[in-house]
Amino acid sequence: MNTTTVKFKLALFIAILLGGTITISAQIEDKPNFVIIFADDMGYGDLSSYGHPTIKTPNLDKMAMEGQKWTNFYVGSSVCTPSRAAIMTGRLPVRNGMTSKVHRVLQPWSTNGLPQSEITIAEQLKKGGYGTAAFGKWHLGDKEEYLPVNNGFDYWYGVPYSNDMDITLEMNEPQDYWNFWKSEERKEISSFNIPLMRNTEIIERPANQHTITKRYTNEAIEYIKEHKENPFFIYLAYNLPHVPLFASEEFEGKSKRGLYGDVVEEIDHNVGRVMEALKEQGIAENTIVVFTSDNGPWLVMDEEGGSAGLLRDGKGSTWEGGMREPGIFWSPGNLKPGIVTELGSTMDLFTTFSKLAGVELPDDRILDGEDLSSTLFEGKESPRETMFYYRGDELYAVRYGSYKAHYVTQSAYAEDREAHETPLLYNVDVDPSEKYEISAKHPEVITAINKIVEEHNKNLVKGPDMLKDWDYNPFGG
Amino acid sequence: MNTTTVKFKLALFIAILLGGTITISAQIEDKPNFVIIFADDMGYGDLSSYGHPTIKTPNLDKMAMEGQKWTNFYVGSSVCTPSRAAIMTGRLPVRNGMTSKVHRVLQPWSTNGLPQSEITIAEQLKKGGYGTAAFGKWHLGDKEEYLPVNNGFDYWYGVPYSNDMDITLEMNEPQDYWNFWKSEERKEISSFNIPLMRNTEIIERPANQHTITKRYTNEAIEYIKEHKENPFFIYLAYNLPHVPLFASEEFEGKSKRGLYGDVVEEIDHNVGRVMEALKEQGIAENTIVVFTSDNGPWLVMDEEGGSAGLLRDGKGSTWEGGMREPGIFWSPGNLKPGIVTELGSTMDLFTTFSKLAGVELPDDRILDGEDLSSTLFEGKESPRETMFYYRGDELYAVRYGSYKAHYVTQSAYAEDREAHETPLLYNVDVDPSEKYEISAKHPEVITAINKIVEEHNKNLVKGPDMLKDWDYNPFGG
Repeated sequence: MNTTTVKFKLALFIAILLGGTITISAQIEDKPNFVIIFADDMGYGDLSSYGHPTIKTPNLDKMAMEGQKWTNFYVGSSVCTPSRAAIMTGRLPVRNGMTSKVHRVLQPWSTNGLPQSEITIAEQLKKGGYGTAAFGKWHLGDKEEYLPVNNGFDYWYGVPYSNDMDITLEMNEPQDYWNFWKSEERKEISSFNIPLMRNTEIIERPANQHTITKRYTNEAIEYIKEHKENPFFIYLAYNLPHVPLFASEEFEGKSKRGLYGDVVEEIDHNVGRVMEALKEQGIAENTIVVFTSDNGPWLVMDEEGGSAGLLRDGKGSTWEGGMREPGIFWSPGNLKPGIVTELGSTMDLFTTFSKLAGVELPDDRILDGEDLSSTLFEGKESPRETMFYYRGDELYAVRYGSYKAHYVTQSAYAEDREAHETPLLYNVDVDPSEKYEISAKHPEVITAINKIVEEHNKNLVKGPDMLKDWDYNPFGG
Repeated sequence: MNTTTVKFKLALFIAILLGGTITISAQIEDKPNFVIIFADDMGYGDLSSYGHPTIKTPNLDKMAMEGQKWTNFYVGSSVCTPSRAAIMTGRLPVRNGMTSKVHRVLQPWSTNGLPQSEITIAEQLKKGGYGTAAFGKWHLGDKEEYLPVNNGFDYWYGVPYSNDMDITLEMNEPQDYWNFWKSEERKEISSFNIPLMRNTEIIERPANQHTITKRYTNEAIEYIKEHKENPFFIYLAYNLPHVPLFASEEFEGKSKRGLYGDVVEEIDHNVGRVMEALKEQGIAENTIVVFTSDNGPWLVMDEEGGSAGLLRDGKGSTWEGGMREPGIFWSPGNLKPGIVTELGSTMDLFTTFSKLAGVELPDDRILDGEDLSSTLFEGKESPRETMFYYRGDELYAVRYGSYKAHYVTQSAYAEDREAHETPLLYNVDVDPSEKYEISAKHPEVITAINKIVEEHNKNLVKGPDMLKDWDYNPFGG
């Protein structure tokens, strides 16, 4: 056990004695470790504890049971790149230009990445003396200057973008990409010439995706063992269950949910290994582990995509299924176990971890995060009251308390965009599936949300679009 | 603690020593108590442990965690009367005439009820010396001869049919009924002149539905206290969360899910009281408690209906949402805790309980139940391989292992009936939402299921229709 544990627990004890009238973050004199485990395209409904009938996730379920299972936990965007920009910077991607009118995510042929002017959560925690390491998918720029090791991470072992990129088959137009997923070639590793990198060097190409979940975990565990004496921040971002789906021999065919379930069960197994390693090293009590996913399930992939459970739509959409995710917080002995129905967001991690690490928040920019400490440690109401749902650089919807107003609606991957003069209104606590429109019944809520939007827009400076420029056009256009 | 507990636990211990090679039911020399808790119209997705984000069900979640959470657990029909006939008799309702071409459920003006020739689970357990009591909704006939006390129960305290019947407002045609649910009158107890009965006597009319969940539970707990020295069977069938929704003062406005959530949380609270009472009386370890619901959520009731989670459609439908339900088994110390993805059905309770009670199964009729003991106590595969989904007296679909073939499809409450020459095929383990039709890929499965249907039909003798006859026509027809 490292020496920080005792102080951390003592601080919590004092906070409890004091009746929780001051936030826990003020009490922590020492620095807990942080581990973010980030799945890719896993849906709200894909864990047994979130209601999936055939995917078995005993480790994540245990994490949820011993810790807190958040049921209104949001990502910053419904697709990969902007969602990752949001968790990394604690800001809406529209502020840092990581979302665009032209393209939804970065491609291997994209010119840019996360602007250097942005402060990542890793850079932020380094200010507090943290060791920082990333394992897995990045997707915030694959040019050297944009890679994790140039954005606050001491170390990185992973893949620079999505595991479906660098397809080796000829693609002449975007439709070829969708057709490919019905072909047999999608099952071959060699169809995806993706690079596995260590820091700035490519060490394997194509990456063997069958073993990639396990290898990311091995490296993370190694890091935990080597760095347990000092506070650390680990960002463990699995490439899966994004398509193409690959499982190891041990897991292929294991689940009743088909290959998708095998892949999720393999991730669950490896999350269990991380928890076990933290326990074995005696630092679980001084670590906060968060598990979530970057966006909703990619429904157009049919059985190879996941499930948003009872939520509407999925990846790519500003309906709940696109942006609400499992959110599990685990820190044995520190968190009040239970189900938390308060609002939270991946953007809150930047703020919350900064507070717990004793690092000042930057005051030269707008942050979109809240400090969740008092909800995590004292069971208080979350300070988060709103969520802004952007598609590209346009605000589509706003959640305010139990309500959600849709100014624009559009299916995940269809051109059925519809703007609403009076926004569509849903009470997503009463009606999480967004079935029963109630704007006529609650004009006062619309008025309140309109004001929130007005306020939001006042301060909104959109970052220059980092996604629009391509070095070349792979479709020859 | 009654004396049966020790023997029951000893038998289990011996079974474990023997490596589980023989079924536990053969080991039980004594008679455990049975409690069936049956909700009404609660959907697959309405408990937190089955994925609902805002309904908090800590007691049922605890039951699921300490016991077994079944995720492929089916009722015998997608509407009340036949579903209740199925759990009572361990038989498909088509065999006992409790399903019909003409009407879906019994009405207060129906002539008939469950035929006396049927053997109820209560009659069956009485043969084994059990005390038997029913609390709550019956809906298998409201003429005296059809009431619980004339069908194997020593005692009954409850309502003879659904809590939305006996509406006091004028209804001239069926559409008036649906319009009523948009009116303010639906919120008044006095709009429902339903009788609360003790045995064969009406003791309150209209029943005060605000307190009915609590009062059923009070009576059940009283029964437990008074009968703990001898084996008993309790059937605790709450009228709620069927519309009209009513909660007590303590629960109204408590949940984030609106009145529906309040009602479910009140049921959860009362289920917790039953568990507590069993513990307090020292008989929890010698009792098997089962919690389930009679059919899927009544989706046409909008926010006043529940959710089937990721399952398709709801009450009234042979899609999964109509007939798959939460199924929680709890018996502290006896069941191997975990999530069970094997097939089970309410019809299996008749068979399983008979075995555990040492009562011979009737040999003069076809039973549709399986003995689930070895799955419950030894973690073995379920003996159930099939499920037959009837709508009225017509077979619509058949589940066989992971597959489900739809011979006829129809939405819950629409006239869009469609027969399929080649049945629609789904793998409901891989695709629980029944989205991806795969008959072309698996002709061998169709062949196998066709054979199962042929075999099923050979032995099928439909009971005389008990639902079609009315004493009078309330619509003046």
